[in-house]
Amino acid sequence: MNPEQLHHMRHSLAHLLGAAILELYPGSKLTIGPSVDNGFYYDIDCTTKISDQDLPIIEEKMHSLLPSWTGFEKRTVSADEARTHFAGNEYKLELIDEIAKEGGEITLYTSGTFTDLCRGGHTENPAQDIEPNAFRLERVAGAYWRGDEKNKMLTRVYGLAFESKEKLDAYIYQQEEAKKRDHRKLAKELKLFTISELVGSGLPLWQPNGNVLRRELTNYLWDLHKNRGYQWVWTPHLAKEALYDASGHTGHYMDDMFSVFGGTSKEKFYVKPMNCPHHMQIFASEQWSYRDMPVRYFEPATVYRDEKAGQLSGLTRVRSITQDDGHLFCRATQIHTEVSTIVEIIKEFYTTMGMIEGYKVRLSLRDPQSSNYLGSDAVWKTAEDALTEVCRVQNLPYFEGIGEAAFYGPKLDFMFNDAIGREHQLATVQLDFNLPERFDLSFTNEKGEFERPVVIHRAIGGSIERFLGVAIEHFAGSFPTWMAPVQTVIVPVNTELHGDYSDTLLKKLRQQDVRAEIYNYNDSLGKRIREAKKLFVPYIIVIGDKEMESGAMTIEKRDGTKEEGISIETFTQNILNEIKERK
Amino acid sequence: MNPEQLHHMRHSLAHLLGAAILELYPGSKLTIGPSVDNGFYYDIDCTTKISDQDLPIIEEKMHSLLPSWTGFEKRTVSADEARTHFAGNEYKLELIDEIAKEGGEITLYTSGTFTDLCRGGHTENPAQDIEPNAFRLERVAGAYWRGDEKNKMLTRVYGLAFESKEKLDAYIYQQEEAKKRDHRKLAKELKLFTISELVGSGLPLWQPNGNVLRRELTNYLWDLHKNRGYQWVWTPHLAKEALYDASGHTGHYMDDMFSVFGGTSKEKFYVKPMNCPHHMQIFASEQWSYRDMPVRYFEPATVYRDEKAGQLSGLTRVRSITQDDGHLFCRATQIHTEVSTIVEIIKEFYTTMGMIEGYKVRLSLRDPQSSNYLGSDAVWKTAEDALTEVCRVQNLPYFEGIGEAAFYGPKLDFMFNDAIGREHQLATVQLDFNLPERFDLSFTNEKGEFERPVVIHRAIGGSIERFLGVAIEHFAGSFPTWMAPVQTVIVPVNTELHGDYSDTLLKKLRQQDVRAEIYNYNDSLGKRIREAKKLFVPYIIVIGDKEMESGAMTIEKRDGTKEEGISIETFTQNILNEIKERK
Repeated sequence: MNPEQLHHMRHSLAHLLGAAILELYPGSKLTIGPSVDNGFYYDIDCTTKISDQDLPIIEEKMHSLLPSWTGFEKRTVSADEARTHFAGNEYKLELIDEIAKEGGEITLYTSGTFTDLCRGGHTENPAQDIEPNAFRLERVAGAYWRGDEKNKMLTRVYGLAFESKEKLDAYIYQQEEAKKRDHRKLAKELKLFTISELVGSGLPLWQPNGNVLRRELTNYLWDLHKNRGYQWVWTPHLAKEALYDASGHTGHYMDDMFSVFGGTSKEKFYVKPMNCPHHMQIFASEQWSYRDMPVRYFEPATVYRDEKAGQLSGLTRVRSITQDDGHLFCRATQIHTEVSTIVEIIKEFYTTMGMIEGYKVRLSLRDPQSSNYLGSDAVWKTAEDALTEVCRVQNLPYFEGIGEAAFYGPKLDFMFNDAIGREHQLATVQLDFNLPERFDLSFTNEKGEFERPVVIHRAIGGSIERFLGVAIEHFAGSFPTWMAPVQTVIVPVNTELHGDYSDTLLKKLRQQDVRAEIYNYNDSLGKRIREAKKLFVPYIIVIGDKEMESGAMTIEKRDGTKEEGISIETFTQNILNEIKERK
Repeated sequence: MNPEQLHHMRHSLAHLLGAAILELYPGSKLTIGPSVDNGFYYDIDCTTKISDQDLPIIEEKMHSLLPSWTGFEKRTVSADEARTHFAGNEYKLELIDEIAKEGGEITLYTSGTFTDLCRGGHTENPAQDIEPNAFRLERVAGAYWRGDEKNKMLTRVYGLAFESKEKLDAYIYQQEEAKKRDHRKLAKELKLFTISELVGSGLPLWQPNGNVLRRELTNYLWDLHKNRGYQWVWTPHLAKEALYDASGHTGHYMDDMFSVFGGTSKEKFYVKPMNCPHHMQIFASEQWSYRDMPVRYFEPATVYRDEKAGQLSGLTRVRSITQDDGHLFCRATQIHTEVSTIVEIIKEFYTTMGMIEGYKVRLSLRDPQSSNYLGSDAVWKTAEDALTEVCRVQNLPYFEGIGEAAFYGPKLDFMFNDAIGREHQLATVQLDFNLPERFDLSFTNEKGEFERPVVIHRAIGGSIERFLGVAIEHFAGSFPTWMAPVQTVIVPVNTELHGDYSDTLLKKLRQQDVRAEIYNYNDSLGKRIREAKKLFVPYIIVIGDKEMESGAMTIEKRDGTKEEGISIETFTQNILNEIKERK
């Protein structure tokens, strides 16, 4: 089923839902019933109050009607004919008036005994083409007529619909899993971050456990860059208005920006919404030669963008955004090599994260018909050819987005799937011919002339916050050992008898930088082990008489398997290897 | 010589300077001539234009007059007598009028043949007590009469004066060294940070080399904390006004704070001027038991404080201040142990930095006469006793500052000397009984009751920026290997013949995380070695035929000494040890 067919199927099911409603609740007034991303809905001014409990009855009615729906008959009618048909339904009458006013064609579609006002787009033969197990009514909600709270509140019935029962089940499973894995819920249980009313929405405070994730992620990103010619820089979170006038942000980006006023100086600043302008200024502070090119800056830095408090949620929408940012300054001829390296980094990173399977790349190119782009044709050609070649040579699963390039350059966007199959757009590589112009950047070429570099913006994880939001749900809180806030918990059976020995083991592990904890408080052994399991600690070590005597330990892993007779040295060596290799 | 004697000596020399001026430039009008921190000056309305070239002549005159200055004769006179004496000198007449108006005693002091209007405070016998080689005229500057630019510009002659020639020479050496070591100059040469006009004053952008210093310092600080029970947290740079209302900052700290307004949300925030309120909110987000105490948060985080652009200079006064911050939450009985650990960290840190010699500690206690303090007598006693005992037990070179405690708690401030003997107040440990009240912090004690914790603020380096400002000058840019932005430079004698082999060595070093560079561009060998030396690179490795054949290298150290016949493995091992032990 292609996307259009899927849409037709969902749209047809909205009709079927409307028909079922009218059969069950005669006198109800149907309003509008479109298809949506995962199914369909219908908004109804219902004679009876419908709740989730009523959905099985409605679904049954849909099933009983479906076999008689063997096609959709289209009829073009006059406005008056339509008005007669929908007499008494003020919603449909309003719609008819609007279509008539715009001079549009008014069409009615009939399937079975049900006729609806509709623009068309249906399955040819619903009885034959729609698998009865591939749709399900989902829930009932309230919705104002036309989304306006001044209007009447209608009843909205949502349905899910996919091309097969398997796809429907997979979607339902994904939704249920997503609820269990909700990163806001897990963050609370695992003490990752907290939101304070006094500090504000969208400004998470990272507790120690969550900050381990941030730091491990940052360190890993740096590990991927440090031997590839990147240099880590640091730039402040404020800058004067003049910087953003130069970059063009004050012209286009004002709503997202936080304005700042100095208490003593009375000077005007902005909190940085992006790192690029700052990095341009570091580049501009030196004289460069072609021999220095490319110059590659790396900075995981927090930028701030304003949103209304109501739109902020967990780590998905935040005001404090720590980008794993990087900017390269290179010659057009170097784009291919540099982008190749970035793609290499992206692949390695998402392989480590277990998210490489089924990834996709969108190659956004300019619209050849439009002249609304900055930079010469020659530079555009070199850049687009370079990106395309990287896609080909590296065998990327890419598709072209013609006309989707920014006005200042083409780009690559990477989409990755998480453990339950949701797609996230995360990494990006973006060429930029605009900022080098605006900041008048240059290097001296072989002939001693000033030459303009190309800038490449790139982010691997996107932002630390959003990536961790995805990663917490992807791993369902059960992070790989290298990321895990607590990597090992030692539980002495008896805190008095086995506490000291356990402490010795703890110290040995910590000396090697293993994040180890000891649970030696006065709760039962079982309760303490359960505590550690709730935190998804990769390795639990229980120390009792046997272990003290033999000097060997039993290691309980997260998956429930156990390893016995392991010495502290062997365990340390194993876990350090696992951490180092980021397994 | 005690401070008062030193002041008398300097004051007497100001008289001597005045006398010399009048002998050399008759008709000049003396105005005021006080002692200052390093000597003295006199502001003169001079008949001749004096420049630095004239200083030797004036100094000679002072030397020739000095033997006849065997004492100061004091004479109390009436205003009219004084006016007669200084007839024609409108400056002295203005001073006389003022003293008369205030009903003060008018006194004249005479030494040799020179009489000046003066309040007194002189060396008893200048000819005998002042070592002629222990003072020197320093420079000529302009100064408005009474510092008011609407008044006439006078000539100010500055003199340096110390109790001995040695001390004078030491001071002059220190000044010259300080000039050579000026961190603003070194930062430019070593590419550590840059200031951009578009970004703003006091907001340094850290170039790659400078950011190595920041990161090494931060990593070292974390190394000192991580196995002492500290946990690293992360907090955003903005918070709503409500947070600072709760902490009391909006009441007392407004001038230093940057106000923030959301573009879309229209909400009001501040850029954080301190991390404490944020850390209080992390603590407040959990329920704590006495078994969890102490809780120790560590966060090297950038706070922003406004100053007028004119007052900002290099790293000494900045607007972006990265504090190596930490906050502990503990019971009063735990103060002693916790402060001991902090003192341990401070000592280890400044020993590593080579700044431990001659350090001093000020123990700031409350004024027993005043009741203007927050917190119970019992808590104050426990806290002050704990701090005093730490000072005693750890044998700290401390002195008490009675009445110098903050209203919310006593504290320890640490003063360290840099390589040229300048003192810097850097580390601090500050007890706080106020913020726990304001944020209503608590933990559950053994009886199940809520108990208020004490907060300890602590900083080891103070701020990364200011500490690096000190450290750049302390090391004169020649950082210990573990901090050095570039730790090794490999210089192939002939880039074509020895380039590939040098590259192999480079890769080996980089694989072990040694910050190594290769200088394989087309400049002469000597020029490339000089380049590396200018950057104070700890180890320079020159690779020619001999080295390629033997597989052994000659290492040239920063101090000019050389080691021969070293294999790459031995060198790597040695430098890694040096880095690890932070020698």
